[in-house]
Amino acid sequence: MDQNLETDAETLTKTLCGHLAAARFRDLSAAARREARRGVLDWIGCALAGSGHKTIGTLLAVLQEISGKPQATVFGRGLKLGLLDAPLANGQMGHVLDYDDTHMGGVVLHTSSPVLAALFALAERPAVSGADFMLAYAIGFEAGVRTGRTAPGHHKGGWHLTGTLGTIAAGAACAKLLKLDRQRMTYAMGIAATEAAGMQQNRGTMCKSFHAGKAASNGVLAALLAERGFDSTQEIVEGQRGFSRIYSDVAAPEQLTAGLGETWLIESNGHKPYACGVVLHPLIDAVIALRNHAAIDPATVSEISLRVHPLVLSITGVVEPSTGLQSKFSTVHAAAVALIDGDAGIAQYSDAKAADSTVAALRRKVKAQADDSLRRDEAYATISAGGKRHEVHIAHASGTADNPMSDAAIDAKFLANAAPVIGRDRAERARDFVQALETQPDMRGLTVLLA
Amino acid sequence: MDQNLETDAETLTKTLCGHLAAARFRDLSAAARREARRGVLDWIGCALAGSGHKTIGTLLAVLQEISGKPQATVFGRGLKLGLLDAPLANGQMGHVLDYDDTHMGGVVLHTSSPVLAALFALAERPAVSGADFMLAYAIGFEAGVRTGRTAPGHHKGGWHLTGTLGTIAAGAACAKLLKLDRQRMTYAMGIAATEAAGMQQNRGTMCKSFHAGKAASNGVLAALLAERGFDSTQEIVEGQRGFSRIYSDVAAPEQLTAGLGETWLIESNGHKPYACGVVLHPLIDAVIALRNHAAIDPATVSEISLRVHPLVLSITGVVEPSTGLQSKFSTVHAAAVALIDGDAGIAQYSDAKAADSTVAALRRKVKAQADDSLRRDEAYATISAGGKRHEVHIAHASGTADNPMSDAAIDAKFLANAAPVIGRDRAERARDFVQALETQPDMRGLTVLLA
Repeated sequence: MDQNLETDAETLTKTLCGHLAAARFRDLSAAARREARRGVLDWIGCALAGSGHKTIGTLLAVLQEISGKPQATVFGRGLKLGLLDAPLANGQMGHVLDYDDTHMGGVVLHTSSPVLAALFALAERPAVSGADFMLAYAIGFEAGVRTGRTAPGHHKGGWHLTGTLGTIAAGAACAKLLKLDRQRMTYAMGIAATEAAGMQQNRGTMCKSFHAGKAASNGVLAALLAERGFDSTQEIVEGQRGFSRIYSDVAAPEQLTAGLGETWLIESNGHKPYACGVVLHPLIDAVIALRNHAAIDPATVSEISLRVHPLVLSITGVVEPSTGLQSKFSTVHAAAVALIDGDAGIAQYSDAKAADSTVAALRRKVKAQADDSLRRDEAYATISAGGKRHEVHIAHASGTADNPMSDAAIDAKFLANAAPVIGRDRAERARDFVQALETQPDMRGLTVLLA
Repeated sequence: MDQNLETDAETLTKTLCGHLAAARFRDLSAAARREARRGVLDWIGCALAGSGHKTIGTLLAVLQEISGKPQATVFGRGLKLGLLDAPLANGQMGHVLDYDDTHMGGVVLHTSSPVLAALFALAERPAVSGADFMLAYAIGFEAGVRTGRTAPGHHKGGWHLTGTLGTIAAGAACAKLLKLDRQRMTYAMGIAATEAAGMQQNRGTMCKSFHAGKAASNGVLAALLAERGFDSTQEIVEGQRGFSRIYSDVAAPEQLTAGLGETWLIESNGHKPYACGVVLHPLIDAVIALRNHAAIDPATVSEISLRVHPLVLSITGVVEPSTGLQSKFSTVHAAAVALIDGDAGIAQYSDAKAADSTVAALRRKVKAQADDSLRRDEAYATISAGGKRHEVHIAHASGTADNPMSDAAIDAKFLANAAPVIGRDRAERARDFVQALETQPDMRGLTVLLA
């Protein structure tokens, strides 16, 4: 018997979608609401900071030529584009600096760039309340992270999860914003998942952040089609030719609904103090700690020796980055700028910094060694300088669930990201809007500040 | 060392793209030109025949609401949509009846729905000659089929190749129409491939033909971005996290360039006499042959026994289809309608026919058995009726490379598909246009006939 027939039978996907369709704002925990506020604030700052990136300029040159009805705002650009095009631009600008939030709950997923870029576009049609927006955002985490858990070999297999799971997360979030029922939520997931793509092979290129934008755009389309009754399989995740089996060498479809309703996955979202992949954060913390503690002069350094989780070297192995985008995938660059500048923010990942000769010289002195016994948020660093050796151990990198950024730190990050683009006054008004997100009657009040 | 850095080094993908970028119309063989003409004619007929399908109506309801500048024609609908939206609609209508061409050269790929839907949209901007159009079309086969051959486990792995490889084929074809150089052709493939999606889990649903439309739309976007210098990896096919490795459990990257320039893959394209997957064609040929030879009354049949390639049962295993789309994935439906109607055209795959009680009764008398020793284009059928047994063997199904449709049959199929939608006169003018395709100065002369 074929697995694609419409059926009244319960499937895992329908069970999940029934749960998502039934969820109400009052079901959100206080922690989930807090993380929704923090997530929106941090992400809009990242998007604004990314809005001037040359990658976005290239994308917009094409989209402005072909896009249509100005239905949705492109952040930081004083521009509106079509309902599928603005999410593409906003999703890509949210991720282009590798500064956006990361969920580590069994997957490594930058949920907000796909999900929020999609939701902001849909929230420019009829008025959408802050509460409905927050609920839809939380639903995106449930759909994306849960689907990811059904495919344990997905990341190792070479997929960029922000592209693949991001599409599913965005589709489900949009379906929730459109208040679709269980069947149509199931269709939205079925359509979104069958659009899901993005290869790790494109790390260090413009395509990497494009995955996030495409996920947002594809998610909007999936939900709008599902709303009209455009159908799909009832078992896109668990079916014999479904997501958990074809995007992963190991399938764990039962994970889709495991512990459903017990907690909200958005509660364990993480935010980045540094503008690069989270795998680099422990070693950056370590180098900055040594710099601050021992006042090391970079010119006197003979070696920076790192001991890190094996994933660090497999993901960020670029040794001679020539562009800012490439330098985000370079362990040696991260250590070098952390020692020279004491930071790893946007300025440390510019094209100019990647080409800087002092940085390049110090990069060549960095030795990194993989250690299976370390956690992903853990690192050791030793710096040999002026005849002395300085050592440090970071147990939990900043920005992780065990060492989260404070509200004040997220506020400061937001203002630093947003103010140069939209001005200090608008940035503060945007922050105030988000602090009272759940009582806002109309999300367009925020969008207009970000234009 | 990371594999994503820009490099002057030759890669397999760059070698292929250099070849594709350098190809000229005069390099096309006479057979390739003939197949390009046949392919365009057959496909525009399939698209017109599909243009009134309810799936297309649902899709267009969404696209009309959100699409923008009317830059590209939607066939058979008297409608223009945006440059990414019209290809989505036209690609889906080309594939929705499962009546479009099939390439069996190591892959099972419906090349024309993604590629031609994309090319027709781009050919509405500046004038594009028929010769340039044919060359770009042929390039689509090279990119799509060759990439497919690098991923031998791709189809078995659960992917819908018309979605995945179709995106790559469309991206390369569009890049050729835009006359991109080797580097930008490489980017176009890198962007297109990283958008490539479509799961077999969605067979029998509206998503299946959506894959073809999405492939067309994604291909256009990839080429337009690449034209502006939007970059990607240089090794999207052969890289360690590239297409051949992550979309397939077995990788054969060297197939990307094997025999490059020796022949044109478009030469071995196949066209369908029946409106369903090619795997069903041998058994339909068999049942129709018995019906014609023995004048069997379906009411007297006690059993229809089939011996078929194993793929038939794994792909088309639906036993009780309830919609026209589902019935295209039903071996038992194919045999039943072939005996009752002596055909397997559009009418035999309608919702009404799927629900017809006479058809349903006969479907229950069909027994199909897999036989590893058969080729994919081969079948045996035995019909027991009125106390007699009738047997037949089909060595090569009609519409395959070994038993191709004649030009006259393709002409007749086109007129039958097109005339009910655009009228006999326009259909004949379209056919005449395509017969002289390589001397046409402006493809818009054809597009206007198909509106």
